[in-house]
Amino acid sequence: MMRKQKPVKDSFVIMTELVLPNDTNTLNNMMGGRMMHLMDIAAAIAAQKHSNRIVVTASVDNVSFREGIKLGSVVTLQAQVTRAFSSSMEVHIDVWAEDIPSGTKFKSNEAFFTFVAVDQSGRPIDVPEAVPETPEELTLFDGALRRRQLRLLLAGRLKPEDATELKSMFAIE
Amino acid sequence: MMRKQKPVKDSFVIMTELVLPNDTNTLNNMMGGRMMHLMDIAAAIAAQKHSNRIVVTASVDNVSFREGIKLGSVVTLQAQVTRAFSSSMEVHIDVWAEDIPSGTKFKSNEAFFTFVAVDQSGRPIDVPEAVPETPEELTLFDGALRRRQLRLLLAGRLKPEDATELKSMFAIE
Amino acid sequence: MMRKQKPVKDSFVIMTELVLPNDTNTLNNMMGGRMMHLMDIAAAIAAQKHSNRIVVTASVDNVSFREGIKLGSVVTLQAQVTRAFSSSMEVHIDVWAEDIPSGTKFKSNEAFFTFVAVDQSGRPIDVPEAVPETPEELTLFDGALRRRQLRLLLAGRLKPEDATELKSMFAIE
Amino acid sequence: MMRKQKPVKDSFVIMTELVLPNDTNTLNNMMGGRMMHLMDIAAAIAAQKHSNRIVVTASVDNVSFREGIKLGSVVTLQAQVTRAFSSSMEVHIDVWAEDIPSGTKFKSNEAFFTFVAVDQSGRPIDVPEAVPETPEELTLFDGALRRRQLRLLLAGRLKPEDATELKSMFAIE
Amino acid sequence: MMRKQKPVKDSFVIMTELVLPNDTNTLNNMMGGRMMHLMDIAAAIAAQKHSNRIVVTASVDNVSFREGIKLGSVVTLQAQVTRAFSSSMEVHIDVWAEDIPSGTKFKSNEAFFTFVAVDQSGRPIDVPEAVPETPEELTLFDGALRRRQLRLLLAGRLKPEDATELKSMFAIE
Amino acid sequence: MMRKQKPVKDSFVIMTELVLPNDTNTLNNMMGGRMMHLMDIAAAIAAQKHSNRIVVTASVDNVSFREGIKLGSVVTLQAQVTRAFSSSMEVHIDVWAEDIPSGTKFKSNEAFFTFVAVDQSGRPIDVPEAVPETPEELTLFDGALRRRQLRLLLAGRLKPEDATELKSMFAIE
Repeated sequence: MMRKQKPVKDSFVIMTELVLPNDTNTLNNMMGGRMMHLMDIAAAIAAQKHSNRIVVTASVDNVSFREGIKLGSVVTLQAQVTRAFSSSMEVHIDVWAEDIPSGTKFKSNEAFFTFVAVDQSGRPIDVPEAVPETPEELTLFDGALRRRQLRLLLAGRLKPEDATELKSMFAIE
Repeated sequence: MMRKQKPVKDSFVIMTELVLPNDTNTLNNMMGGRMMHLMDIAAAIAAQKHSNRIVVTASVDNVSFREGIKLGSVVTLQAQVTRAFSSSMEVHIDVWAEDIPSGTKFKSNEAFFTFVAVDQSGRPIDVPEAVPETPEELTLFDGALRRRQLRLLLAGRLKPEDATELKSMFAIE
Repeated sequence: MMRKQKPVKDSFVIMTELVLPNDTNTLNNMMGGRMMHLMDIAAAIAAQKHSNRIVVTASVDNVSFREGIKLGSVVTLQAQVTRAFSSSMEVHIDVWAEDIPSGTKFKSNEAFFTFVAVDQSGRPIDVPEAVPETPEELTLFDGALRRRQLRLLLAGRLKPEDATELKSMFAIE
Repeated sequence: MMRKQKPVKDSFVIMTELVLPNDTNTLNNMMGGRMMHLMDIAAAIAAQKHSNRIVVTASVDNVSFREGIKLGSVVTLQAQVTRAFSSSMEVHIDVWAEDIPSGTKFKSNEAFFTFVAVDQSGRPIDVPEAVPETPEELTLFDGALRRRQLRLLLAGRLKPEDATELKSMFAIE
Repeated sequence: MMRKQKPVKDSFVIMTELVLPNDTNTLNNMMGGRMMHLMDIAAAIAAQKHSNRIVVTASVDNVSFREGIKLGSVVTLQAQVTRAFSSSMEVHIDVWAEDIPSGTKFKSNEAFFTFVAVDQSGRPIDVPEAVPETPEELTLFDGALRRRQLRLLLAGRLKPEDATELKSMFAIE
Repeated sequence: MMRKQKPVKDSFVIMTELVLPNDTNTLNNMMGGRMMHLMDIAAAIAAQKHSNRIVVTASVDNVSFREGIKLGSVVTLQAQVTRAFSSSMEVHIDVWAEDIPSGTKFKSNEAFFTFVAVDQSGRPIDVPEAVPETPEELTLFDGALRRRQLRLLLAGRLKPEDATELKSMFAIE
């Protein structure tokens, strides 16, 4: 049977949040854990929109934090599914932080989250194929396989010698 | 001048949390983002204890989520610094989840967070050397260099050919 | 001196939120007060973007609530400045609620909030003129005067006989 | 069958809250959305007390915000049902803010909320008649019809020419 | 110099709260710690009203919990200063819980909290004398000395043989 | 039938928390109510670990608060069951507060909480005997009877003349 197809852009989510006092440390900057909490929610909504299912977080790839984000800043998260595997979906997230009164704005984070679609009793269930359309979506779609191998390798569920896709990343032939 | 030395175990932190309704999704399982929020706080406290400084999250390595953690479960996080670089510290975290009335307990997560110690104006500041003592602490200490290269590589700040430590991981000579 | 001009669309904000347990009543539906809390934050960010200032809520027009929004739903708020007066801005907000697994989506609220831009000591400060461009933006811009008279009338700060704009609304000549 | 009668004062509710850091903006003043959240809870409890039912917010009339309320202030809300229609109730709310150490106290808000009583499956259900006793309660009771017409008119569910009660408000005969 | 006098009833505070999901355990009953959190806030406001100062919690006497309070219940706290010592005040709190749809209401807690008034740098500062007026207020005023001795005794700061007031409680002469 | 025995140390719990802005008053010190909230959760987990049951708070003994705990401090709670009665357990809690950047650490609280183990319908259910092993555990175990009499006496459920254990405390023979 043909698997249903769905453009990746149908999962696009924008989330905007104000940095409140309880999100900050004693330097009045947003704490990293709070940011990951927001990223997880934005990414989960994108995966829900693609799959029309309840989703659970399966993994988060390396996230790095650059500049501090001040109390009162506006944080904008953009999340979109990059590729779907049988019951799992990779989601790409970009985060911008803007201190409106001071007029500063910068890209603060970029990350990949993976979610699994589940039924009401929590069992994995198949999701539609995710179809990239723009060149940027295609690049993210192509890279998804390589990132998936890296995740499996890091989780000890793939042997390095079998990580064929990963070799391109390390420029190893 | 000699850099101050401090045993890694001085940074050891245990954090115990109850999974409350607002931490859960519609399946009554803890959301991944909330878990990362807790992991970040536990790890930050370990880094604070090592450095006696305010610390900010610099990066989080790949985190994977296995089984669902039910509402009312007790989550136990254990965090300890593995190695210190000039102003940054890698922290290792283990997380267990226990549903006490049903008597089930399992290891739910394991991750590495990196923090930077900063002064009151937010500028990086040197931290003591972290000295491993047990065989397990030594293994984590030794692996820290390799994980650091992987982070730099993933962040595009190290070329694959210069990732000498990483080769052992991929069994490439 | 000419007042600065800015297209209303520069203030456009999308905010997406997940309905969490603590947002709900004993019927597992989102409480109205929590929704108004979110609407105020979304609208405040739109007013901040227009004015590049800290803003404070001055008033909220009549808000009505239709269907219940279930726990786990995705709430999407879209806010945009409609018109600016000297230091105040009217913001229009549309809210949609979507229960993704059941595939239902509906418009749940529509409202107008007014904000005042203030300086660091909390005193009102002038904001740029808000320029509508599309027909829809123009309709909202035109209606802003009438809604403003209604607000002043309801607050007892305008006499009915002076509410010239309002007469069109009540079809009274 | 006679509908049950209940004095409006039986629904009287006093709610006192401390303004905490997370309730405030970067000027350390309480945010309007947080205030509406509290007003909705206080008003909902008044409507519950009148109807002995679960209630859901149906609408909120125009709310205006005057002076800023500082962090650490004590906010006192007083809510009471003004009049009951078949399954809906109008609730009047007064809010005072007091900064105790500085000795300042002022009335910060006044508003009308409307709630609908529902049964366990969320369907509207009849409520007792609300009987005003004092002159002040009578004034609020009498005005309730006029405010109801204004709500219906603003919601596009009443034609201006049929808003007979409203004419008194606009001094139009 | 005469110390200022103030009737105890000027400190009277009513606080009404809705039991929300995050306040409850897996039996859907309010957790004891959350109740103590509310009691502390209500009592602190009463002490602030008496002293017109910032206050800090000095101690809490034995609190016992009787029946479970269900999710969605309305909790009403009434707090009032009973007696003032130089810079400290004892506050009496009564708590009722009401499940409105089921029509059950019961007194759930009664407790005594002690607060110290402090200046802006956190140093204790004198408060007005608290004057009881009704017989009930007088009984609470009289018992305050005995309860104070018990607190000092339990804290190891008073020898049993010096607890003269306490003897009446244990009916020991 | 022999009642099951369990060493008290099996219930030992360490909980570590960061003092966040919303936990503090206008002096930037942690509020007493928030501390009691944390103590209740830590103690409840200890009682759960001993009984392998859902537990509900039955009572809290006198708690006193010494120095202020600053925003950003690390609070460490250690809880352990001292003794079990048929379905109730007494838990002892020690709390330390540490301001890591300033290098100050002090014991801030010590308290006894009592919990009752309940089944899924909320009815009390028997718990294992708690067996002390170290001298310190034995001292706490022995004192538990005396503290229990004091609780019953304070709750008006024991007559002073029957409080035989309590006499040692008051040095009365």
